[in-house]
Amino acid sequence: MNSATSTAFAPKPLGIVQEKDFLYSRDGGVKLESGEFLPEVNIRYETYGNFREGKSPVIWICSPLTADAHAAGYLSEDPRSVGWWDALIGSGKAIDTDIFFVVCSNILGGCRGTTGPSSIDPRTKKTYGAEFPRFTITDMVKVQKLLAEHLKIEKIFAVLGGSMGGFQAITWALEYPDFVEKCAVIASGTQLSSQAIGFEIIGRNIILSDENFNGGNYSAEKKPAKGLSNARQVAHITYLSPESMQNKFDHTKDSPNNPKNFYTGFALENYLNHQGEKFVDRFDANSYLHLTWAMDNFNLEKKYGTLENAVSRLKAEFLNVHLSSDWLFTPAESYRLTFALLNKKKIVTSVELNTTLGHDGFLLEVSDLGAVVSRFLDIRLPEKRNENFTKSAFSSVEDISRISAFVPKGASVLDIGCGDGRLLDALWRTNQVTGVGFDRSFEGVLHCLDYNVPVIQQDLDKNGLARIADNSFDVVVFNRTLQEVQNPKEVLREILRIGKQAVVTFPNFGNWKVRKDILLSGRMPKSKSLPYEWYSTPNIHLFTLSDFNALCKDENIKIKVLEFVNNGFLSGLFTRLNLANLGAEQVIALICKES
Amino acid sequence: MNSATSTAFAPKPLGIVQEKDFLYSRDGGVKLESGEFLPEVNIRYETYGNFREGKSPVIWICSPLTADAHAAGYLSEDPRSVGWWDALIGSGKAIDTDIFFVVCSNILGGCRGTTGPSSIDPRTKKTYGAEFPRFTITDMVKVQKLLAEHLKIEKIFAVLGGSMGGFQAITWALEYPDFVEKCAVIASGTQLSSQAIGFEIIGRNIILSDENFNGGNYSAEKKPAKGLSNARQVAHITYLSPESMQNKFDHTKDSPNNPKNFYTGFALENYLNHQGEKFVDRFDANSYLHLTWAMDNFNLEKKYGTLENAVSRLKAEFLNVHLSSDWLFTPAESYRLTFALLNKKKIVTSVELNTTLGHDGFLLEVSDLGAVVSRFLDIRLPEKRNENFTKSAFSSVEDISRISAFVPKGASVLDIGCGDGRLLDALWRTNQVTGVGFDRSFEGVLHCLDYNVPVIQQDLDKNGLARIADNSFDVVVFNRTLQEVQNPKEVLREILRIGKQAVVTFPNFGNWKVRKDILLSGRMPKSKSLPYEWYSTPNIHLFTLSDFNALCKDENIKIKVLEFVNNGFLSGLFTRLNLANLGAEQVIALICKES
Repeated sequence: MNSATSTAFAPKPLGIVQEKDFLYSRDGGVKLESGEFLPEVNIRYETYGNFREGKSPVIWICSPLTADAHAAGYLSEDPRSVGWWDALIGSGKAIDTDIFFVVCSNILGGCRGTTGPSSIDPRTKKTYGAEFPRFTITDMVKVQKLLAEHLKIEKIFAVLGGSMGGFQAITWALEYPDFVEKCAVIASGTQLSSQAIGFEIIGRNIILSDENFNGGNYSAEKKPAKGLSNARQVAHITYLSPESMQNKFDHTKDSPNNPKNFYTGFALENYLNHQGEKFVDRFDANSYLHLTWAMDNFNLEKKYGTLENAVSRLKAEFLNVHLSSDWLFTPAESYRLTFALLNKKKIVTSVELNTTLGHDGFLLEVSDLGAVVSRFLDIRLPEKRNENFTKSAFSSVEDISRISAFVPKGASVLDIGCGDGRLLDALWRTNQVTGVGFDRSFEGVLHCLDYNVPVIQQDLDKNGLARIADNSFDVVVFNRTLQEVQNPKEVLREILRIGKQAVVTFPNFGNWKVRKDILLSGRMPKSKSLPYEWYSTPNIHLFTLSDFNALCKDENIKIKVLEFVNNGFLSGLFTRLNLANLGAEQVIALICKES
Repeated sequence: MNSATSTAFAPKPLGIVQEKDFLYSRDGGVKLESGEFLPEVNIRYETYGNFREGKSPVIWICSPLTADAHAAGYLSEDPRSVGWWDALIGSGKAIDTDIFFVVCSNILGGCRGTTGPSSIDPRTKKTYGAEFPRFTITDMVKVQKLLAEHLKIEKIFAVLGGSMGGFQAITWALEYPDFVEKCAVIASGTQLSSQAIGFEIIGRNIILSDENFNGGNYSAEKKPAKGLSNARQVAHITYLSPESMQNKFDHTKDSPNNPKNFYTGFALENYLNHQGEKFVDRFDANSYLHLTWAMDNFNLEKKYGTLENAVSRLKAEFLNVHLSSDWLFTPAESYRLTFALLNKKKIVTSVELNTTLGHDGFLLEVSDLGAVVSRFLDIRLPEKRNENFTKSAFSSVEDISRISAFVPKGASVLDIGCGDGRLLDALWRTNQVTGVGFDRSFEGVLHCLDYNVPVIQQDLDKNGLARIADNSFDVVVFNRTLQEVQNPKEVLREILRIGKQAVVTFPNFGNWKVRKDILLSGRMPKSKSLPYEWYSTPNIHLFTLSDFNALCKDENIKIKVLEFVNNGFLSGLFTRLNLANLGAEQVIALICKES
């Protein structure tokens, strides 16, 4: 975890919070996507912060599968009554209740206050049980919208959701595009994987097979407890990473076995059983069946034909956060959404949180998540955000002024290896570009967010460019990075596929000082533009201006403009004598495909 | 898959094979590790090939969890009656029945002919059911040993097992070290991961929760079918990779839902149900409980204190094969066994099969597996194996003779980046070394096996050396590889930690031709020792002899001997003039830690 960010917000508790209820029964109730009606819907919710009569920007929190309306603060003096995302929400925290009015509700079909299968059907005065109609993620959000209207909310500044909450957050942005300014999708995606659906299908079958299930019409005294516990245990494993399980349990030291009932005696077995039992105490089997079924059927490609069709409706600015060790919602699934948004020219930032905790990390390890979310929610103007920015390890001012000369006003720009986003910020100020950065470092991403620059955190060598559509950008900037990638030729092809033209800058290994150093000292050269030791340099493919020229010729790449950075008299002289391969220390090239 | 290897064996069917039975009831039956007795044990088995009165070398196949004795051939004219590893076993196949006598048996506690919970207890004349005693992997192997004695087998040339079969194979080599010459552990390890045990614990709880389970004393008419089916479905997902599931099922095109019973209508759900039903038809719930319990309790660290303690007992030569997308038995678990063996100076080869099929790949994708196994089982003398070897893309003859001068007779040698194993083969012939190679390429591994050279297939940049104990080798050879790794300094430290001394060879970027080329042409040099284009070279950290000298000084590394390869008059002259940094094209250095 990044130590610089862990103190970004001082935790001030919200104290005791109140659960509230809103009963909606107008217009015959709520019509579901299936066409069925719920004659009335109670919505359990909590709010944090002061609405200031509509003047506070609103943050809407969408609950994951088995959480509830109690996201922050305490329900009683008991410290265990703390809300499930309390580390993120409060005065001075990432979701700052001094600034924002925050709302969280229990989802439709749940069992924690909002109408669900365990509620009383007002028509029959009996528990819905098996008669509760099927519903979808869209229905959940529709009910939340009714609550928002009841609260006289006219606009949501940002909707945030983790896991199944992410499905709701996307759905908010899809169904009410003018109502939602920002949307944060955390440890989530646009569908469950086949593997995840498989585990959920089995989980439901385990519950349906329980001898007490009785077609869904079970009593509180005779619940399908074993089935629900076993289903929960399967799901629970998918929330943990293999590594965290391996670290947590040591079977070589566990207590002796009791073979009589196939009980292993492993701490792991006790832990899983405990997780199952805890869940049975607080959750309803019918709710679990309905909610997982709704999750499995959430599929934007199915609903809209393609993911691109779906996201083209969106107006909100997106933040997609994934966790490195999450195998329920994988990084790849998060990137799928990110690149669909990017290809439809939407504003999107994509961040990876480095954690061994697996999917549950979005609830447990919130320091880095808070650092990202607080910046995403920063309502200060961009020029106010980075007032305290003094220095940067990334782009130099020199680069910025030279590169901006190549970028037309209003161009769309992709800056690969964008570092802290300073170049894009400058281009936005001087040339009014729309831009997005690409960088592998989490620290870079935080700085970009400080600059209000959208950024995609990805290692270029992991082939991120392949998912970007042809001719997506007017200009691709590739500043001092070509020599750092594993396959420079392939990357060069890619940047001229996705960009109409590209600005490439690189250190010239043909510079006379380099040649002189190698000739005379017999050592790998070190200089301002090549500052590293040979054994630790990120520059793994050194090349000269002539090498670059030859490759461009081979690859049918047209060099439209070449500029050189010459330090010192001789470099300048060589360059003026048309001996730029000797003179140039740095090369700045504007290139495009030969037509 | 490697096309060069897919035709390595021509499939000739074994035809119809016979199941056989051996009933053991001497000496009061079989005493189990628990102390309990089974008064008699029937063992169902099959054999393939001709024993030739004990003259054929014996291959012993250990069955995975839910397979049986029928590994090869057909039980009837029905093509579906084919054995579960038939693709590997037969005339001319990887396990060649023209050469070997092959035995496979159903495991103890199973339900496919060998005594298990569904067998009749001779004492009560009733089905064992809940009364069947707990047993271990060691007990399974003990029973197999009785069969081997019955067949008058005095030595097993190689025992092979995949998944739980791998547990048995290791146990054979541990319990009967003088009885087993070679041991192949495929898609397996020395224990289940916490995650895998977790899924098995839940699987058992699902069965125990079935209303028909009746404490294990169920009837054939009223079996815990739902529980067994659900448990199998959980396990089945662990046998597939997420990628293969995603490729196989497309939820965007699946048939409409039937929400009434929470059935999704997805092809995935039908598939899982079908897998569960098929399993219930052929497997007994009590057997499943016992066998998974035995698997969960297999843990060499627990039994022997440490893994090193365990493997120090071993005498067999090992082959560990893992599958790249296997998340039930991960590559990391396989490497754990490999490095434990290596650190105890055992002969071990470790191979990765590149597949998207997950754990099931060891049953389904046997072309590469066959190529590895056939070479591991090659009984020809080393000099006969590579008669048809004519050329090699790897070590040159020149390197071999120069390097061997640095390697003492009888030394233990690790050759990092060993390529085809030719250098180790030569060192074995000339200097009688014991050696092991390290290489990232599957093709290299096959060649090494052709040379009878043990090899560990691993990418050096994935930190394989960290698991090798200090001072494990007399000499580490690092031939033309230092410039290819991501962190040369770190690797240099590592090789002098694990080796008493090291032979390092590298192309000298300070050679006069390189300097001249850069000076005059301004291009990245290409030569015999630097043959690549700058953008596709594996040489990502070029350096000169002087750079190397300086790094050794910084790192307290003593350069004991330096030799140079000088091509041409000038190179030789420079070197004779003590200007080796100008003269040498290649450098060969013998180094050790400064004492």
